[in-house]
This record gives sequence, C-alpha cells and structure tokens, in this order.
Amino acid sequence: MNILVTGGAGFIGSHLCDALISENHNLTVVDNLILGRKENIEHLQNHPNFRFVKEDLLDMATIDNLFADSAFDAVFHMAANSDIQKGGKDPVVDYELTFMTTFKVLQCMRKHNVKQFIFASTSAIYGETNDLLTENYGPLLPVSNYGASKLACEAFISAFCANYGIQAWIVRFPNVVGERFTHGVIYDFIHKLKKNPNELEVLGNGEQYKPYVYVKDLVNGILFVWQHTSEKLNVYNLGVDSRTKVKEIAQMVIDAMGLNARITYTGGDRGWIGDVPEFRYDLAKIHHLGWKAERTSNEAVRLSIEKALEIIK
Amino acid sequence: MNILVTGGAGFIGSHLCDALISENHNLTVVDNLILGRKENIEHLQNHPNFRFVKEDLLDMATIDNLFADSAFDAVFHMAANSDIQKGGKDPVVDYELTFMTTFKVLQCMRKHNVKQFIFASTSAIYGETNDLLTENYGPLLPVSNYGASKLACEAFISAFCANYGIQAWIVRFPNVVGERFTHGVIYDFIHKLKKNPNELEVLGNGEQYKPYVYVKDLVNGILFVWQHTSEKLNVYNLGVDSRTKVKEIAQMVIDAMGLNARITYTGGDRGWIGDVPEFRYDLAKIHHLGWKAERTSNEAVRLSIEKALEIIK
Repeated sequence: MNILVTGGAGFIGSHLCDALISENHNLTVVDNLILGRKENIEHLQNHPNFRFVKEDLLDMATIDNLFADSAFDAVFHMAANSDIQKGGKDPVVDYELTFMTTFKVLQCMRKHNVKQFIFASTSAIYGETNDLLTENYGPLLPVSNYGASKLACEAFISAFCANYGIQAWIVRFPNVVGERFTHGVIYDFIHKLKKNPNELEVLGNGEQYKPYVYVKDLVNGILFVWQHTSEKLNVYNLGVDSRTKVKEIAQMVIDAMGLNARITYTGGDRGWIGDVPEFRYDLAKIHHLGWKAERTSNEAVRLSIEKALEIIK
Repeated sequence: MNILVTGGAGFIGSHLCDALISENHNLTVVDNLILGRKENIEHLQNHPNFRFVKEDLLDMATIDNLFADSAFDAVFHMAANSDIQKGGKDPVVDYELTFMTTFKVLQCMRKHNVKQFIFASTSAIYGETNDLLTENYGPLLPVSNYGASKLACEAFISAFCANYGIQAWIVRFPNVVGERFTHGVIYDFIHKLKKNPNELEVLGNGEQYKPYVYVKDLVNGILFVWQHTSEKLNVYNLGVDSRTKVKEIAQMVIDAMGLNARITYTGGDRGWIGDVPEFRYDLAKIHHLGWKAERTSNEAVRLSIEKALEIIK
C-alpha cells in the first residue's frame, strides 16, 4: 500500500516506519523535525520504498499538494506533541501540534479521497480514575491538555468516519518506552544521574503506578489491530497487563548504571500538572482479537534502560 | 455578578440574558450578529445592567482587551455554530465557531483569572446509540461535526478545570425550541408551508423520535444547575423525559396553520448527514438535583409553533 506516516521521524513513528517497510509498503514520511530526528530514519533513506518530506503539517497548502500528488491509500498519523508537561504550561502546544495537525490531515483525506486513517491515541483521554479503563469507559474527562487534544481528535475522527467514507483505527497507548525516546521518566532519570551520580530526585512520591509498553511491541500491536479489524471505526486500548512504579524505575536505572545513588522525592501524588498517577487498562478487547504484548511492563522498562544506555554512552 | 454571555444575541443566549437580568446580574453580551440578531436583545439595550459588544470571538486581541477591562466573574459561553446541517457540509464551520471560540475564551479566562465557565453542550456528543444516555455514557463517538466540536470543547474544559483553577458547568442540551429560533424542524416546516400550503415534504421517514425542550425551561434549568452544584466540574444532561416524532411535528404545524396539507417523505431513517434519528436521555441526575422541565416535549413543540406563528405572521 501507498502509506503516509506523519511524524515518521519521531520516537514511535520511526519504529512504525521500520515495521511498514519490512512489510513491503511504500512509505512517505512527513516530519518537521522539531520533535522528530533525521537519525531515526537515516537507515531507511536509501530504501526504494521510502521517501522523506521535511514539511510542517500546519502548512495546509503544502500538505494539500502532497496529498494531491501522492494518491495515498492510508495515513498513519503519529505527529503530535508528545510532551505532556510542556503542553501543561501552554495549551496552544497541544492544540496546534496534536489537534490542528489531525484536523488538517483529515480535511486533506476527505478532499483527496484517502480511505484509511490510523490514529495514535492515548490513555490520557480517560482522565483520572481508579476504574478499569475499557474502550467504552465514560465519562471522558481528561486532566491534561495532551489528553484533551487527543480526545478532540477522536471526536472529529468519529464524525469524519460517519459522514465522509473514511475508515479509522484509533489505538490508545499507555506510556511507551524504548530506543529513540526523547523524553519521559527513564530518559529523565538517566540524564539526572549523568549530572549527579550520587542522588536521583524523583518528581512526586514515586508511587505513580502505570503500564509501560515497549515501542516494538506497540508498533506490532498497531499493525495487528489495523490488519485484523474492519469496522468503519475501530477503537482499541493497546498496552500491557502489568505496571511499574516510578520508584522501581528509579532503582532499575541506578542499578543498570552501576551506581549507588540515593533516591529523594519531591512529594505529592503526581509528577507534574496533568500527570495521572495511576491507571489500570482493560486489554480484553485486543487480547480477544488475538494480540498480546511480548514484554511485561518491567521487562519493557528494563530493556529500554539498557538500550538507552547503549546509545547515550 | 459580573457576567459575560457569548452569543447572547442568539436564540438560547438571548433568553439566558433575560433570565440573568431578571436576577440582577450585570451583563456583557458579545455577539458578532452573524447567527445572533439585534432584535433578540433590543428590549434589554437600555437596561442599566446590560451592555452589548458587537465583536467576533475569533478576534483574540479584541476579546483579550474586553477581558482585561471587565473583571468578569463568570462566562456563559453560548456562542457556537448551531446549524448541524451546515457544519456537515464544511467541518471548518463547527471547528471555528464552536471549538475555536471556546478555546479562545478559555485562554482569556485563564489569563485574566475568570473563575466560572458555563458551557452549552449537546446530546450530539454521545453519537448514535439506542442506549439510555447517562452523563457517564461511553464510548463518545459523535456522528456530526457539531457533536465532535462540542466534545472537543468539553475535553479542553475538563483539562482547564483540572489545571488552571477554573470551575465549569457543562450542560448538555437536546433539541431546543421556542421563540427566536433561527432554524430547525419547526422553523423549516412553517417556511415550507408558507411557500406551498398544499404539501409538506419531510426529510427522512418522519420516524425520527427525539426530546424537544422549551427554551425558557432550558434556561431555567441551566441556571438551576449553576446555582445548585459546586464541584470543580459539573456535568448534566438537561432535557425532557418525553419525545416527539418528526411526523407528529409536521401534523401539529399543519393544524396550527389551519391547513390541510399532504405530508410526503424523502425516505431513509434520518433527515441529513450527521442527524441522529433517535435518542433517549437519562435525566435522573438533574431530577435528583431537584429540577424538572415544566413542559413535555409535545407541549414544548406546540407552544413553539404558536409563538413562531405569532411572529412570522
């Protein structure tokens, strides 16, 4: 298939490109290289099925031209603000990078008759609750601009599917870890310990307890859902059953770096504005479909620390 | 209180102004008079507590100045695209008039420290389902751009409440009828019969079956919810228990106009793209709070036909 991957030079997007290329699809990547990195896709540059276009999705005229010239069969829309903390400080970040990019891509798809849309959504749309999060959970009251903008996207995707002959796959991710990440708790801990190997300051009380999925498992799951479902709109939680506490991650990073650092806590039940300290994902729907993550949350965290240390060293 | 009513010259907004003025609040109305009408608020123009500002909410600099100069205590945000059919043809209509106006007002509230936000939401956020619609219903998969944009607003309202010290009331309306309406099924039927008194063409099969609430009941309910709840975020369905079929409305209009017109149907289960042909509202939450609409759906429709005919004549 002829596929557009937006944000394809980013953390998750570039792993998705690897997987799609290995399945013989023809890829165009659009990325403005603000959050994405050229290095993430360097190994694909000379592949005959791969094309990289450095453009900004907010530049509607350029993107419209790209759609007009390309006859895409499907769009994997991975472009978004991925930094929840940054979006908490300025709502325009999530509004522009997450919501507006999605709205503009949907408009281009409608205009140029592109039929399949695969969307990177998030557990953050569910807001903060102790309930088990099924795909049909309500109410949806996000506590971060990140979650709000993703829910806003889902809303328009749903309406575009209902009215304009677009078929969509909404896949809701938990925390994702692995090679090429650009931020997040593991990344932060490694960088803090590089600066000060004797002490690691953890934001919050360290009890934040969430599922972490390994990026290659995640990409494998996205493609599985896309290839095994065919409703007009297909909505799936994707993740791991298990969870890892932030204080466990802190210790794993210290151990992996061979340090003996003291862990301190800033206190409070969460790391930052918009952080959801704890959530439980119901994965019955995707398991029933026949997919399960290979690695547990702890395995994903441990592997990601290893891989990160190989590169950062 | 010092209150801003956006869209205050519109159908619902102007009735809200009447009610707020009668409760001795100090009002500023912002309306661009594209959907709103000067006539709707003419009777308030000389009231000492009333000020009308003809501006567009999308003009951020002007609105920011208004907030800077006014020290509002609360914002009733009624401005929106109200025409679902129009938004179905061009998603930008709902995106700009509904979503962007809300996002910009929320940004101004955050900047100028305005604490209370009352939002006109809609049953359309629930999408199309035969289930009883409680406030906690999920999944939320709207089938119109109208519903999508309102859900997008709710998402950001939720995040702003969680992070920026804003308190909000989200009140979800069903179909609203009564004096000063500008479109909708009653309005359409009257205008069609004015053109051709012998035949009334109904979009769809006439079996569309929905609750219609009288606008003065609605406004009374909005104020009741605002005055009787105090959570950080208060979400309520507001409507009537009863419902009215579109074909019943057709006959009521014909009877009220003293005609003997033949009713014809264009067929299909819905009137237009994005129409939800049938839904059932769970009102237990608002009833438990102590509020109930005075008029049934049929009474609301009949009264609205009468009032409309008085004015249109």
